[in-house]
Amino acid sequence: MSARPLRVVGHPAPRVDGLEKVTGRARYVTDLVLPGMAHAKVLRSPYAHARVTRVDVARARVRPGVFTALSSADLTWCEPYFGPAFRDRPVLAIDVARHEGEPVAAVAAVDEATAAEALELIDVDYEPLPSAITLEEALGPGAPLVHTGEPLSGHFADLSTLRPQPGTNVCHRFHFERGDTVTALAGADLVVEDTYRFPPVQHVALEPHAVLAAWDETGALTLWASTQNPYSVRVELAKMFGLPLARIRVIVPHLGGGFGSKTYAKLEPLAAALARAAGRPVRLAASVPEAFQTVRRCAARVGTRVGFRRDGTLVAVECAADYDVGAYADIGPRVVQKATYTATGPYRVPHVKLDARAVYTNTTPGGAFRGFGVPQLAWALESLFDVAADRLDRDPVDLRRQNFLAHGEEFAPGDTPIDGKLEESLGRAAEAIGWTRAGAADRGRGVAAMLKASVAPSVSEAIVRLHTDGSVSVLASAVEMGQGTRTVLAQIAAEVLSVPLARVTVVQPDTAVTPYDQTTSSSRSTAMTGRAVQVAAEDVREQLVRVVAEALGVAARDLALEDGAVVAPARRLTYAEVLVLRFGMSGGELIGRGVIAPGRTAAPLGGSTPFWEMAVGAAEVSVDEETGAVRVERYVSVADVGRAINPLLLEGQDEGGVVQGLGHTLLEEMLYADGHLLNGTLLAYRVPRADDAPPALECRFVENADGSGPFGAKGAGEGSLIPVSPAVANALARLTGVRFRDLPLTPERVWRALRARGR
Amino acid sequence: MSARPLRVVGHPAPRVDGLEKVTGRARYVTDLVLPGMAHAKVLRSPYAHARVTRVDVARARVRPGVFTALSSADLTWCEPYFGPAFRDRPVLAIDVARHEGEPVAAVAAVDEATAAEALELIDVDYEPLPSAITLEEALGPGAPLVHTGEPLSGHFADLSTLRPQPGTNVCHRFHFERGDTVTALAGADLVVEDTYRFPPVQHVALEPHAVLAAWDETGALTLWASTQNPYSVRVELAKMFGLPLARIRVIVPHLGGGFGSKTYAKLEPLAAALARAAGRPVRLAASVPEAFQTVRRCAARVGTRVGFRRDGTLVAVECAADYDVGAYADIGPRVVQKATYTATGPYRVPHVKLDARAVYTNTTPGGAFRGFGVPQLAWALESLFDVAADRLDRDPVDLRRQNFLAHGEEFAPGDTPIDGKLEESLGRAAEAIGWTRAGAADRGRGVAAMLKASVAPSVSEAIVRLHTDGSVSVLASAVEMGQGTRTVLAQIAAEVLSVPLARVTVVQPDTAVTPYDQTTSSSRSTAMTGRAVQVAAEDVREQLVRVVAEALGVAARDLALEDGAVVAPARRLTYAEVLVLRFGMSGGELIGRGVIAPGRTAAPLGGSTPFWEMAVGAAEVSVDEETGAVRVERYVSVADVGRAINPLLLEGQDEGGVVQGLGHTLLEEMLYADGHLLNGTLLAYRVPRADDAPPALECRFVENADGSGPFGAKGAGEGSLIPVSPAVANALARLTGVRFRDLPLTPERVWRALRARGR
Repeated sequence: MSARPLRVVGHPAPRVDGLEKVTGRARYVTDLVLPGMAHAKVLRSPYAHARVTRVDVARARVRPGVFTALSSADLTWCEPYFGPAFRDRPVLAIDVARHEGEPVAAVAAVDEATAAEALELIDVDYEPLPSAITLEEALGPGAPLVHTGEPLSGHFADLSTLRPQPGTNVCHRFHFERGDTVTALAGADLVVEDTYRFPPVQHVALEPHAVLAAWDETGALTLWASTQNPYSVRVELAKMFGLPLARIRVIVPHLGGGFGSKTYAKLEPLAAALARAAGRPVRLAASVPEAFQTVRRCAARVGTRVGFRRDGTLVAVECAADYDVGAYADIGPRVVQKATYTATGPYRVPHVKLDARAVYTNTTPGGAFRGFGVPQLAWALESLFDVAADRLDRDPVDLRRQNFLAHGEEFAPGDTPIDGKLEESLGRAAEAIGWTRAGAADRGRGVAAMLKASVAPSVSEAIVRLHTDGSVSVLASAVEMGQGTRTVLAQIAAEVLSVPLARVTVVQPDTAVTPYDQTTSSSRSTAMTGRAVQVAAEDVREQLVRVVAEALGVAARDLALEDGAVVAPARRLTYAEVLVLRFGMSGGELIGRGVIAPGRTAAPLGGSTPFWEMAVGAAEVSVDEETGAVRVERYVSVADVGRAINPLLLEGQDEGGVVQGLGHTLLEEMLYADGHLLNGTLLAYRVPRADDAPPALECRFVENADGSGPFGAKGAGEGSLIPVSPAVANALARLTGVRFRDLPLTPERVWRALRARGR
Repeated sequence: MSARPLRVVGHPAPRVDGLEKVTGRARYVTDLVLPGMAHAKVLRSPYAHARVTRVDVARARVRPGVFTALSSADLTWCEPYFGPAFRDRPVLAIDVARHEGEPVAAVAAVDEATAAEALELIDVDYEPLPSAITLEEALGPGAPLVHTGEPLSGHFADLSTLRPQPGTNVCHRFHFERGDTVTALAGADLVVEDTYRFPPVQHVALEPHAVLAAWDETGALTLWASTQNPYSVRVELAKMFGLPLARIRVIVPHLGGGFGSKTYAKLEPLAAALARAAGRPVRLAASVPEAFQTVRRCAARVGTRVGFRRDGTLVAVECAADYDVGAYADIGPRVVQKATYTATGPYRVPHVKLDARAVYTNTTPGGAFRGFGVPQLAWALESLFDVAADRLDRDPVDLRRQNFLAHGEEFAPGDTPIDGKLEESLGRAAEAIGWTRAGAADRGRGVAAMLKASVAPSVSEAIVRLHTDGSVSVLASAVEMGQGTRTVLAQIAAEVLSVPLARVTVVQPDTAVTPYDQTTSSSRSTAMTGRAVQVAAEDVREQLVRVVAEALGVAARDLALEDGAVVAPARRLTYAEVLVLRFGMSGGELIGRGVIAPGRTAAPLGGSTPFWEMAVGAAEVSVDEETGAVRVERYVSVADVGRAINPLLLEGQDEGGVVQGLGHTLLEEMLYADGHLLNGTLLAYRVPRADDAPPALECRFVENADGSGPFGAKGAGEGSLIPVSPAVANALARLTGVRFRDLPLTPERVWRALRARGR
């Protein structure tokens, strides 16, 4: 098989799901209708923390049009707790409500209006309890305990290192140490340290969580769910209802944005319980305010200390991070340890000491969110890098470049060697932002870098089917949520099998039929699922070649795939002709199989990341000194992606990441008062609008084909978000001389700081 | 791997789809609802043969509530013809209507009532033409031509031997010859010959044909269809609309009986065209009278001549069969050649000459029906066997036994050697019916035997998935239509993987995800699809064993699968544990692949049958001489199935086959007058009722594990039907002395014959 130039991969193909979406005909979960389907509504706690002394659903249950009304007391026929790290989250509150908006009871009725009316017939008695809303309140002496009683059992086998801490609000600790930071910092020429805060923010996927659940007569369960990982949801439901995995079918229709909010079970357990009780399909769709009560990013308080030698060499990093995981752990403990493991960023650090805690509070549970805990840490480290550069009188770009891990260098013993060139990304970003001209006090420019591991160990599998007419079906379970994975998977199969993109169909995820894929998150789909698709397509390619080699009596190496045909030196056979040779008739298909499962390793967290996600951001900002309004005039993101399978979609994804990062940096924060969320609506919670995007926004890519993914690709899509906050704050500091430690950089906060500076 | 006794296979497990069905909750096509779905109705020709000079749908189209109204003139955006043998059948009549009930126009509207009302607004002008309703009318001199013009193009590659005969009503001829029948018959001691007739009958599946068709924005087509072969339907639609196969999804929900009526496209092309024109999903569900106008069994006139030596040795068979395939070929030409190839039945015949014609008439198209043309031939041959026995003064059982093909003997050069023991089946049937005591004139007993080939070449593929908890999903495209294939496939996977049946889920056929399977017909599912499932499960088993062998450092041969675990001499690992070893985590699945594709061979029809279906029937009848009513008092069916994967379901299926055969024998005939079908309703068309079943009905099996299917299984389910007519007629002849050549044996026909006999 001779090498040939790429024809589909690397090209900016329009997304295969685009037409359905722009015409409004794409079906999301809430568009689905099943005969006899009931509509569900949830009664939620008005208190941040309260004893629930009575829940009486009797009046609701007998209201005409109501099929079922449930409180936790009714859930005797299933496991009433769920959760991916610990099974600490009740389907419906049991005795205690631990955050405002926690589901306490639920109703399924003939329509939504009836269900809403029935909620008013449910009587609940609460005894309010003292609440811990902030990290300080949760960690202080005599803090109200969010959870009491027995330590919670671990859940997934691969999270077995997680340990709750009974008697406190600390639900997980992580510690990682290398070298001797005490001695190193004592001997350092410069130590910079400070505490940085990252606020609680929400994903604001335009489609809130939604589930349609249906049981059949055989006791099998089917869910159409807005989830990023149907296979994790399947495990949760199997445990909850004691079902074999093969009896649960989780189907993911079009998904209206995820950003981590739809990883692991959210509404699915409740919807399945309601459907079982109602004896009919149940549709449960959250409103936007309910999404704010379902999951959010973990707020964090990060104390970081960094030591340098006079020549700029980084010698030590100590980091102590507290993450607020809210009332239930969700995947928070995993966020905490996974992120903190890379708290030293993309730098060579001989002495490292990292400590992190996941802390329960009486707020919306904190889970996965684009960046998976890394933005909170990069906010601290990358800010301190600029502080150090200032103190060392060094150019912040040079100081970073000096300390970058080199291509091929180990991040930690046993983990994947660095597979990108950070200096190339930084150089391009600095050049694009006009760094060589920087230094004038009237213009603010700043940079920041990031490095992030993907989940490991991790498994992706795929099946590729070549039909008699040479068209192709791809069975894989990566969820298309706007990032373009369906298009990318189709491109990979089309490339390997040398067919036009239009002849490839990617089937939507459905655990009954599309094979195992761990999760659509962690920037892993292109690298892992894409690689599985590549291997499966190569399996088909080998079968094609073998059939022709045997039929023509030529060596496989003399055969190539070209435009839907196997080409021999003197003969060209279309795939249709090859399949007739294979099957002796017009019928039959070639089935290719791809399994990517690197397994456990000696890496510190038990698995070597399949790739390192690496990116650099460069910002140029202005500030209105009268109002404190910060404006990002120009932003450049450069991500080291190895290979851009689809540059158009990748650019769109990174533009989205930058703008989402700007939301966290300038606008967003979930604000609580007396335990009540003040701004949990689209009106009150300010996400970036189109006119908040920088007038000049460039997303570029370093492509050295050095990734382990298909055609040298690595993961992308999170990296662009992470540098935004420190890059903007660094620019603002260079512009104003004021260093910010708390986000978001609202006009009021900036105005106050500028005023305090003495202007 | 040591052999162990079968634990799931061979046991009478209740059907896995039973509970859904008996509770009425199983979803059939007509139970499905899609948002915005339209309902279709079809305007049909009232004439058997007419020129259609005008079809005006304008008034229907503008009626409120109507989304589209189509005549053939509108179908400019698709290929307007379809058909599996020849593309001779228009989606909507083009210029000519060739049978009563042929679709001429169709409407899709907001509901069925509106659609029905809109049909009345369609103006059609017909010019009636002379029609050919019977074989005699179609083959006589100056017969009206059902089709004129250019010969029709062949369709499927594997049917390329089919040749229409322009200028006549013969749409296909088949000729097969071996030896020299002229000389052999001239030298024979006894030649018996006669012409036997088999009437047109309908399948009367309790669920008439139904389709729900939906196009998406990307131009992809999804159909939920009541079809026995979704992959053939997919090919038809791909040709019709010029789509890649991967862009067409054919899903088969529960199916309410097939019997061959749902092989190949029927309503699917029209439903898809309506959905395209309406711009929304369209549901098209036939009524029972419309099913009578859609497909039926080919009526036949069979002239057979059989020569014997005095000692009973069969020396020659000549057979000239005309099959009435109705107005469009459907799969009729294939029925004709496939059946006629085995017109010599299960006997050793040195000299053979077979001629058959498929003949167009102006009646409902004739297609596949349980037995696929063989019942028509066996009716003749097995009747003549008893005539010969009488003339030779031989016991009909002995005469058959003497001439049976032996186990391992070639049926024809290059074809599969006989893989069963006919003498064992016949011996058991004769014993059960009390044959040894037969001979008294006052009691009528008769026997008959059959042999039938399955479709060849033929392909079945399957995927078996082993999940982390050791539960199993089977992806295969065999259609469950009451015969029990879902249960049987689950049993096979459960057996190979040593898990309880309840832990196996068989996914319903869906061409987007379940792999290629040629057709659910020809008694092939257990042998072919079942074998694919077995191979796929063995593939999983090998992966399990390999993981454990490598992990424990033991030889694969020392490992066995037992109760969901891999058992080594000193260790037992559950599948969940094995998968953690394989994937380094709790997640991932093993994917097994099974492809059964024996390919083309030198056998006369280009493929060697994967197995021979063989069965024997024995009947005991009584007759009411006053009324002519025949009653089958006792019936014994013995089928040589190799291995009964599920004896309970097999027995049920063969009981159904016997009773359906009794319908053809005693009750059923589609009656035409002036081109109009007189009895195309459930009220007028008499199928057997429960009280028509013989008071004593036994279905038994010969199991020598000598089949090529899983665990030695062969196909079954058609064999029980085929001997019924001759066994009953032979019994009746022995009872009354009257030999019948025409079916059905209605009281009137029997009464007239008895009267003519001279009583």
